[in-house]
Amino acid sequence: MIRIAVLGCGRIGVMHAANIAAHPRAALAGVYDIHAPAALGVAKTTGARVFASVEECLADPGVDAVLIATATDTHADLLEACLAAGKPVLCEKPIDLSLARVKTCAERIKGNTLPVQLGFVRRFDPGHRAVRLAIQAGQIGEVHQVTITSRDPGLAPEAYLRASGGIFRDMTIHDFDMARFILGEEITTVFATGSRLVGPDLMAALGDFDTVTVVLTTASGKQAVIGNSRRAVYGYDQRVEAFGSAGMAISENRRPHAMRLTGAATTDAAAPLLDFFIERYREAFDAEIDAFVTAIESGSAPEVGFEDGVQALVLAEAALLSATEGRAVQVSEVL
Amino acid sequence: MIRIAVLGCGRIGVMHAANIAAHPRAALAGVYDIHAPAALGVAKTTGARVFASVEECLADPGVDAVLIATATDTHADLLEACLAAGKPVLCEKPIDLSLARVKTCAERIKGNTLPVQLGFVRRFDPGHRAVRLAIQAGQIGEVHQVTITSRDPGLAPEAYLRASGGIFRDMTIHDFDMARFILGEEITTVFATGSRLVGPDLMAALGDFDTVTVVLTTASGKQAVIGNSRRAVYGYDQRVEAFGSAGMAISENRRPHAMRLTGAATTDAAAPLLDFFIERYREAFDAEIDAFVTAIESGSAPEVGFEDGVQALVLAEAALLSATEGRAVQVSEVL
Amino acid sequence: MIRIAVLGCGRIGVMHAANIAAHPRAALAGVYDIHAPAALGVAKTTGARVFASVEECLADPGVDAVLIATATDTHADLLEACLAAGKPVLCEKPIDLSLARVKTCAERIKGNTLPVQLGFVRRFDPGHRAVRLAIQAGQIGEVHQVTITSRDPGLAPEAYLRASGGIFRDMTIHDFDMARFILGEEITTVFATGSRLVGPDLMAALGDFDTVTVVLTTASGKQAVIGNSRRAVYGYDQRVEAFGSAGMAISENRRPHAMRLTGAATTDAAAPLLDFFIERYREAFDAEIDAFVTAIESGSAPEVGFEDGVQALVLAEAALLSATEGRAVQVSEVL
Amino acid sequence: MIRIAVLGCGRIGVMHAANIAAHPRAALAGVYDIHAPAALGVAKTTGARVFASVEECLADPGVDAVLIATATDTHADLLEACLAAGKPVLCEKPIDLSLARVKTCAERIKGNTLPVQLGFVRRFDPGHRAVRLAIQAGQIGEVHQVTITSRDPGLAPEAYLRASGGIFRDMTIHDFDMARFILGEEITTVFATGSRLVGPDLMAALGDFDTVTVVLTTASGKQAVIGNSRRAVYGYDQRVEAFGSAGMAISENRRPHAMRLTGAATTDAAAPLLDFFIERYREAFDAEIDAFVTAIESGSAPEVGFEDGVQALVLAEAALLSATEGRAVQVSEVL
Repeated sequence: MIRIAVLGCGRIGVMHAANIAAHPRAALAGVYDIHAPAALGVAKTTGARVFASVEECLADPGVDAVLIATATDTHADLLEACLAAGKPVLCEKPIDLSLARVKTCAERIKGNTLPVQLGFVRRFDPGHRAVRLAIQAGQIGEVHQVTITSRDPGLAPEAYLRASGGIFRDMTIHDFDMARFILGEEITTVFATGSRLVGPDLMAALGDFDTVTVVLTTASGKQAVIGNSRRAVYGYDQRVEAFGSAGMAISENRRPHAMRLTGAATTDAAAPLLDFFIERYREAFDAEIDAFVTAIESGSAPEVGFEDGVQALVLAEAALLSATEGRAVQVSEVL
Repeated sequence: MIRIAVLGCGRIGVMHAANIAAHPRAALAGVYDIHAPAALGVAKTTGARVFASVEECLADPGVDAVLIATATDTHADLLEACLAAGKPVLCEKPIDLSLARVKTCAERIKGNTLPVQLGFVRRFDPGHRAVRLAIQAGQIGEVHQVTITSRDPGLAPEAYLRASGGIFRDMTIHDFDMARFILGEEITTVFATGSRLVGPDLMAALGDFDTVTVVLTTASGKQAVIGNSRRAVYGYDQRVEAFGSAGMAISENRRPHAMRLTGAATTDAAAPLLDFFIERYREAFDAEIDAFVTAIESGSAPEVGFEDGVQALVLAEAALLSATEGRAVQVSEVL
Repeated sequence: MIRIAVLGCGRIGVMHAANIAAHPRAALAGVYDIHAPAALGVAKTTGARVFASVEECLADPGVDAVLIATATDTHADLLEACLAAGKPVLCEKPIDLSLARVKTCAERIKGNTLPVQLGFVRRFDPGHRAVRLAIQAGQIGEVHQVTITSRDPGLAPEAYLRASGGIFRDMTIHDFDMARFILGEEITTVFATGSRLVGPDLMAALGDFDTVTVVLTTASGKQAVIGNSRRAVYGYDQRVEAFGSAGMAISENRRPHAMRLTGAATTDAAAPLLDFFIERYREAFDAEIDAFVTAIESGSAPEVGFEDGVQALVLAEAALLSATEGRAVQVSEVL
Repeated sequence: MIRIAVLGCGRIGVMHAANIAAHPRAALAGVYDIHAPAALGVAKTTGARVFASVEECLADPGVDAVLIATATDTHADLLEACLAAGKPVLCEKPIDLSLARVKTCAERIKGNTLPVQLGFVRRFDPGHRAVRLAIQAGQIGEVHQVTITSRDPGLAPEAYLRASGGIFRDMTIHDFDMARFILGEEITTVFATGSRLVGPDLMAALGDFDTVTVVLTTASGKQAVIGNSRRAVYGYDQRVEAFGSAGMAISENRRPHAMRLTGAATTDAAAPLLDFFIERYREAFDAEIDAFVTAIESGSAPEVGFEDGVQALVLAEAALLSATEGRAVQVSEVL
């Protein structure tokens, strides 16, 4: 049994705590939240203990590993502290909103051999993963074009958006990682354009965008397109298409059931999409915990590691620069 | 050029005349209808001549073959007359509503070597045909169960229904032929049940059904199910499913275009079905003419012949008897 | 917390025990199996206690309710014993293979007011249930025809088949219940036909069928068709179609993910179906437990009760008689 | 009857001639090709006359209108000559490969009131058009993002590519027009990136690309993405997706029939796509002729006119500049 503590009991921390408790080879070692009642709530339903502080948690020999699900601006500090305490880490994305801070973090943990896994959960989605597996099995030949569609069901609250670091660092970051995962090759140039169509006044006030399109290319000429919107009225739109020299693989949207309704006006209508990320990526979140447990058990490097977190943030920086300057940005410019 | 005359200029005769005129290796030799203005209408748009009588048509050496699309009760007489005149025939289904008359017809044309093709147009539908081809290619192994769904978009006029011979002889007859086509084996028993759900009063007055389910079995134990309704509000529902020892092939419904609409309430909604048979089976009607032309050119027996017309009617008789007596009827009982 | 004991630790009992343990308002009160190591295995992974006997379990005041997942021939006895001990029951189907025994059981528990729920899990499937809800919401008008397809991925072991009571009582029984659920009206006549196509020699030796088609009708003329096969090479084929006066609702098959593969030979190919019932009906099994817990909490009658178990078995008897005699059987004949 | 002459009897001219001949309100007035045998071939199958020269054709009072399907470098000259002769024109795209020549042409025909229709046939595709109609009907609200996928089944011959003007002017030009059609708003900036993945050596030799991604934006911030490839092994991939504030409409690929094949390895596999443009856009080519005939009959401006041809070429110029300079290009830069 790998005993995992969860730091941060917001929506995603609560979900992770429950998943850890339900995992056959993991146990929930305890929870911590800066807001004590949040941690107590999780403790009540899972029976897990509540840590009084991060320090107490990290000092506990009954804690084999730590999952960091706290506010973004604490991720890098906690990650460093966990590794210093000898605890493997599964850290929610992003490592930090500041690339400079992320680079410092990379410096400080240099030489670390403990498993560090980044929370790019979509890599574990059965559909998206099936696209990757089809590529690896040669079923679509060489990848030429990748299209990633990712739209949220609705605009997040202003407070969330204000602290998010902007759409590229907060939302597109998942798609940057997905592009790297599906392309199987590093990205060299980024072009991005952003619009304010969902909440124009709020976006203008924040200096942010709610609708973006990003084009990524690799040294060999592979192309990826990311389309994001902060609001799709039909639900959480999550699709990945890979086009290659020998075929195409598409991970389609998912629905809560497969009932199709036909009437006089329209036929074969499906249910709304699974909504929101906790439901849509339920199997992926399970598989993410499983991969972390397996990495710890085997001592092997997690499939998605610290460097993946760095690369995704680098692409976000490049996208922001591109959207600002209206030109393709070389990734090397922002490294 | 095979010069084909069309007898009968109702809805289906008009369509056939146009298809013949457009066929690259056929010409419309002329048209005839007992109601002269109907024939004149076709002549006007196609430039074809109008025959003053059937006799004139059959005596014309410029007529290589005849398509019979007149009222059902004239089919057998005309078919016999055409063959007597040395003209190959493409005859709309059914040969006659009376099995006795059909048997007499069979007697009279015994020894005929001219091509006689029956108008079971659905055999030429690209989707249904692809099911048959998949079976012949071994792609689903041995056929075990066949499901045929066939629903009209709306109840036909009372006058049509009154002359139709009842749902089994008029509507299910296409599905009986389809079952034989897909099963690839003769049917030995028939069970049928009929209900009056669409137009109960009219159906009761006619002694007919508007909603029927028929189960067919073969000597080797293969099973087929036919589901018919006289009214599907969503259009002309035409599907064929073949389940076998190594897989399954389904010919799905068709729509005028492939646009899918997603909104807040439903997702991926398709357009209504193609409606009605002239649109839905457009390619099939073309292919039917092509098969007839090819049979005449090559002197070979048409793929769907007189005997297929007999068998379908036999199954209709058996179904009617089954529905009346509430038991499985051996096909041999009605032969 | 409703504390539920599980009797029988075979494949389905093990699953139920895990689901109960994971339910937020239920607890696994303990497990029992005639083969002690089976119960110990469940105890090990769930931490639940092991009862030494059924008697010990039923006498335990810490047991609020019982789930019966033992061999079929013990269901009726255990059901009676549980109710006598004042424990609500969730009993796997069928109540018994003998209709006479089921009737005796009905007599003995007459007057019982404790919740008795039958394990017709498919009623809780989100897709099938969405069909039922669409009907109740009037979205397809009056139901006219129902088509239920249910095919197992592979032939069960001979020992299982020998004890199964035959395909109608073992496999079709689920579909009989589904037909009643979707039709929303009692069935009055049954026609069934059975073939031996999957394992002809074994089936002949057992006097059983592996491929059956059943037609059910109600007093008002609604029709339902059930198609079963003991082996579909492409997986567990589970579909329900309801056709009505105002539209159609279809619960389609489900797959582990929504990736579609396109190559030079075929396009849009999906993954194999979810396989087998534990995966396919995972949400349904969860919802079944939830409905049982809710019924106990609220003291209300379960949605699917003892009488539903009786009716499904009655239909199985009628189907067997019909297949033997080749005629439509009135349900009243076998009551 | 509108009597239409066809200039140019290559693949597309032959098809247009046949479509005109089959149109109920049009007649094929005659054909011309610089290579006489090509014109004679069409004359043979359609019965149309052959013009000895363009001059003869334009001088003929029996010619009501002209369809230009000759080599691209003759389009502008012929278009000017037709209008000078008082003949309405349906001209295949592009007007010319040189924007300068197109501008001169625009100058020369200034004041023309005869119908001039450009051959952007995809606007008439029932699926793509249904997307546009859904937008106009308000079914998806305000358009935010458009995704156009357009991939040819295979690399065209080198001679064709050499004369094509490059992928942006030859292939993407259709998608530029489609983007304008679906967005319903003029495009202000273009970003394009091109790769050589299908035929790298040939493309390098030609200074052309075979795989391109283009991002278009409008003044209000609407975004469109075009993905092109010169070779999709699975056929002619033609899709349009419009995402809006109230929903999404997708025009999916089309196949020759709706048969779906399920086996042990994959399920629900569809047939290869309709291939190539003559089959895929068959209804669209028919509707294009119909729109031209209707415009002449009614004297109204065609839905897709000369200015649409100019705009598409402007976007192609901008894309080429963008791909060369690696920056977003303002459309105003190339006007």
